[in-house]
Amino acid sequence: MSQQFVSVEESLKKHLPEEDRKEVFRILYGRELPELDLTIGAANPLNLELKGYSFSAELEGLRPPRRVRVGLIQNSIVLPTTDPIAAQRDALLSKIGQIIGIAHLNGVNIICMQEAWNMPFAFCTREKHPWCEFAESAENGPTTVFLQELAKRYNMVIVSSILERDEDHGDTIWNTCVVISNSGKVMGKSRKNHIPRVGDFNESTYYMEGNLGHPVFETQFGKIAINICYGRHHPQNWMMYGINGAEIVFNPSATVGGLSEPMWSIEARNAAIANSYFTCAINRVGTEVFPNEFSSADGRPAHRDFGHFYGSSYVAAPDGSRTPGLSRVNDGLLVAELDLNLCRQVKDKWGFRMTQRLDLYSRSLERAIQPDFKPQIVRENMTHQN
Amino acid sequence: MSQQFVSVEESLKKHLPEEDRKEVFRILYGRELPELDLTIGAANPLNLELKGYSFSAELEGLRPPRRVRVGLIQNSIVLPTTDPIAAQRDALLSKIGQIIGIAHLNGVNIICMQEAWNMPFAFCTREKHPWCEFAESAENGPTTVFLQELAKRYNMVIVSSILERDEDHGDTIWNTCVVISNSGKVMGKSRKNHIPRVGDFNESTYYMEGNLGHPVFETQFGKIAINICYGRHHPQNWMMYGINGAEIVFNPSATVGGLSEPMWSIEARNAAIANSYFTCAINRVGTEVFPNEFSSADGRPAHRDFGHFYGSSYVAAPDGSRTPGLSRVNDGLLVAELDLNLCRQVKDKWGFRMTQRLDLYSRSLERAIQPDFKPQIVRENMTHQN
Repeated sequence: MSQQFVSVEESLKKHLPEEDRKEVFRILYGRELPELDLTIGAANPLNLELKGYSFSAELEGLRPPRRVRVGLIQNSIVLPTTDPIAAQRDALLSKIGQIIGIAHLNGVNIICMQEAWNMPFAFCTREKHPWCEFAESAENGPTTVFLQELAKRYNMVIVSSILERDEDHGDTIWNTCVVISNSGKVMGKSRKNHIPRVGDFNESTYYMEGNLGHPVFETQFGKIAINICYGRHHPQNWMMYGINGAEIVFNPSATVGGLSEPMWSIEARNAAIANSYFTCAINRVGTEVFPNEFSSADGRPAHRDFGHFYGSSYVAAPDGSRTPGLSRVNDGLLVAELDLNLCRQVKDKWGFRMTQRLDLYSRSLERAIQPDFKPQIVRENMTHQN
Repeated sequence: MSQQFVSVEESLKKHLPEEDRKEVFRILYGRELPELDLTIGAANPLNLELKGYSFSAELEGLRPPRRVRVGLIQNSIVLPTTDPIAAQRDALLSKIGQIIGIAHLNGVNIICMQEAWNMPFAFCTREKHPWCEFAESAENGPTTVFLQELAKRYNMVIVSSILERDEDHGDTIWNTCVVISNSGKVMGKSRKNHIPRVGDFNESTYYMEGNLGHPVFETQFGKIAINICYGRHHPQNWMMYGINGAEIVFNPSATVGGLSEPMWSIEARNAAIANSYFTCAINRVGTEVFPNEFSSADGRPAHRDFGHFYGSSYVAAPDGSRTPGLSRVNDGLLVAELDLNLCRQVKDKWGFRMTQRLDLYSRSLERAIQPDFKPQIVRENMTHQN
């Protein structure tokens, strides 16, 4: 696995002849999406990749188009993990603040950062100290307060994935996403429903499965929900956000190349198709090195890095089309203009909600969770003799 | 959309430089799969594409490898749809019989054909006559009897997707898959659980949603199940086959380029990942022309063909890797050697079954199906004020 390879899409664009390129992109990415005309502002001290695409929908007779621009930020950390906690956090707040400013210049209405964006992804270490210090109140911690000001100034909904400190419930820690309205108010929060136990993702050492269900936030710009990281592997998790009415589901993630890369382009896109909504898959980028060595339970010697977070953030639509991914190696801002009318149009066309048979699956799951559940297995000695 | 473009994989292999090709294939297809050394026999009068790949697993201390070879057949029809029904069917039986012979030469243990393989996919016409004549008994119709002989001769499990005539229940028609044991006995059948109402897939005109649940067949070569065609769009359908213990799920399909092609590589592969089993996605190939013109409810003039069935059959593994697809334009037989031990190994590694929280989704669905269900929506006027 290369950390230098920029992206599949760049390679295909560079090497495929015109007529093949068209067919390959149609089959791999769906319909062609016009690029948005974007500006990065007076200067680009951040060396930020900025890309934008538009998902149109049919014009309807009764509903005007409902065009909304979403922004996806993928970024590396700023300071070494050996620096003071406050300095590490504040450097990230400053960097993301600048990127949100660029998103505002480009008309973004709803923005979402990667998972646990205001800290390094330290769960590989299994060390509680000092990393737990990054946890803060979802309602009025410094990160939320910082973003509330930006949300109001830019008239932008901000979806902020952080490590939450829940003082009202025994100082417990959660993996939480805070939704801040464009008015600057905290609308509420969503918690990670499925916690990994794979590779160096020792997150179950720090926090438990979320207890807030599958909330959908009715913002001024559309109904949104958040499926945090590992939850993307669970189709039922995606399904419940759809059942609760989501039109856009963000998937702030942190995942590394050796583990998940061939799955990355599949799961959020499958969810967009199956649930007739847009999905926004956001991955961390870069390699993070920690002060103390740790082992990875895979026979390798102890080491100090988590591996390469491969970025590749993208947006997928209910009709199965998707944007190219951002780079595997650089910070980036992906802007997508979505006509949310496409969600209902695809429901009407494909009928996945009408044909979903939830009653069948409700009964099936009720049986499946019983301790004495017997799977429906057909064996030859039980069969019809011919 | 081109009917001539052979496949994405052929184009990538031809045009990408070596180092890019390696990275592109790793990201798009997962780990590299060794090709099998296959033989098409003395001659190839069928002009059949024959490809094979091997999915290995780690060696274990207690279980020997459980290697099984599956075969996937994609094919065009043989005779014009204006020929007598019996002649059309018998020509297909003859062609498939030959291909099953080639599969036998290459050690195939379990074979599956495309959806409704013994007939043209006539549901676009909405005509009951003469197409309903293709429906036959799952237990002892001519197609099943024909395959029972081959199953026994070749010691092969055969999964046969047909239009079923159910004489015991009012002559009703079903979209059914018959599972024939390598002993030649009919083990049982599985019915299509989700029926499309999209494009020219007027199948709800002919048959209803399946009533047999999600059976898994414990064959001598592994536990298999069948998710027929449009059921691949429904993650819960895939999930229940997994809950019932399937190690391989076949997805015999018939789908056309203009409608579903960008989704094709996503859905069965996502199911393999989410459920830690192998999936075998099989699509019809070619263009079928019918005697009488019909309209497609899309503003186009009436016409006589369904569009191009794009083949592209493939196998996906629980670790997210997949084979290249068969051609978009030719008949083909795809052989894959699967070490079924990989299923449990991936469950242990990724933990998707352990972290699945079926109790949560059982409760959630029970609420969701109530007529007075209120989705979990957070609105700003209900939120915490800062």
